[in-house]
Amino acid sequence: MGNPVLEVLAAHRSIRRYTADVPSDEMVEAIVRAGQQAPFSGQLASVVLVRDARHNPWNAPLLFTLCVDMARMERVMAKRNWTVVTHDLSMLWFGIQDASLMAQNMIVAAESLGLGTCLLGAAPFMAKALADRLSLPRRVFPVVQLTIGYPDETPPTRPRYPLDVSLHEGRYRISDEETIERAMREMDEGYLAQDYYREAGAMIPLEGGRAETFTYDTYSWTEHISRKWGQWMAEPTELTEPLRQQGFHIGADIDDPAG
Amino acid sequence: MGNPVLEVLAAHRSIRRYTADVPSDEMVEAIVRAGQQAPFSGQLASVVLVRDARHNPWNAPLLFTLCVDMARMERVMAKRNWTVVTHDLSMLWFGIQDASLMAQNMIVAAESLGLGTCLLGAAPFMAKALADRLSLPRRVFPVVQLTIGYPDETPPTRPRYPLDVSLHEGRYRISDEETIERAMREMDEGYLAQDYYREAGAMIPLEGGRAETFTYDTYSWTEHISRKWGQWMAEPTELTEPLRQQGFHIGADIDDPAG
Repeated sequence: MGNPVLEVLAAHRSIRRYTADVPSDEMVEAIVRAGQQAPFSGQLASVVLVRDARHNPWNAPLLFTLCVDMARMERVMAKRNWTVVTHDLSMLWFGIQDASLMAQNMIVAAESLGLGTCLLGAAPFMAKALADRLSLPRRVFPVVQLTIGYPDETPPTRPRYPLDVSLHEGRYRISDEETIERAMREMDEGYLAQDYYREAGAMIPLEGGRAETFTYDTYSWTEHISRKWGQWMAEPTELTEPLRQQGFHIGADIDDPAG
Repeated sequence: MGNPVLEVLAAHRSIRRYTADVPSDEMVEAIVRAGQQAPFSGQLASVVLVRDARHNPWNAPLLFTLCVDMARMERVMAKRNWTVVTHDLSMLWFGIQDASLMAQNMIVAAESLGLGTCLLGAAPFMAKALADRLSLPRRVFPVVQLTIGYPDETPPTRPRYPLDVSLHEGRYRISDEETIERAMREMDEGYLAQDYYREAGAMIPLEGGRAETFTYDTYSWTEHISRKWGQWMAEPTELTEPLRQQGFHIGADIDDPAG
């Protein structure tokens, strides 16, 4: 199987170093238009573009912040004499998808134009600061950010799980021990062979005073991802609080009278 | 701006009628591999493929169910002596993104091969039935489904918001009334010109005994989307209950001792 589209999809890797060249307005329009054409048709996502390379992550010439935009949807519905009854939890469930589907099409479009991209997931956790900087009104919440520009590095594509660990035929089959270990080995050896974490300086420190037993000769994907989910974002308030500040109420704070 | 990739992205529309032809195994592999190559590198998504055209939505030869797979992640972490501390709300926030990013790459890959696709968002709300049918273990939750096959219809691409309603330069600008009305007009007139809702028989009934004032000559996108968010999914339990059944706990039921 091969065609120009599959080649672009297979060649994807994040770019964290950009030249000073600024993609043309025609490119920007083509990228966002491609994003809009993604499903679903609900179009809950809005995009804010910041061209401030000096302050953008990786000094990228373009930084797109993709948001769930209930403010716009609620205005449309008001003009039809409707108000939203869908719970914010479900609304966000679909909104996160709309923003992600749009982001992925933007990535593919940009890379087809010879540009590089990097998707950044921290936006929800710093939503207050982003809302201030981007003038996001109530009922608009940032889901994900995307840097785009001309690549100033040529990294290899990064390892992925073996296909048989990700794809189940007919029904979900719990992988046997050997399969899980093989998957971990392929990820770890793959990243180590690229010296990825050393070059990125990306080792996550151990918390709670635990002694470090890894070096960049041994630290790889399974340890890295374990340190994320094993140490970070333990409190639901890390999400519910920024959501509440933007007027979204889920779970425990649904009855918050301050909302 | 034009290239084979942008052409595929711009040509996207959902396909709800398929021929009996079954895409080759090589195509399936190319599609899922393309999906895996999407960011983020956390790879929280797993895919279950069902080839039962008789029972699949739209009788599609291929039905992919994309799941947040914490079962696999937790096994990987256990082998590194880690346990997850990240709250399920944040875990799902990232997992929904991983599944969506993967789904969009699968859509693009499939369409580049001449196949048609339809993304279906109802999976989370029928997770219990899906979990039974697909043998999804605890800590695996279905996010979205994707039908793929050879198209047996040639619908046009569907309308999208004008670019200036979706893309904000520098900071978010609240659209003026005229811009919102123009956006609604373009959506409504666009869908009406395609007779989309009549052909799909997709008018959403009014609940609560309200009298219908629309016909398929007037019913279009803004009314359709308003009836969804204005009538459906009002209760958080519509999501929290299926999540709880698969071992995910967010918001209000975090302290549920049954978990």
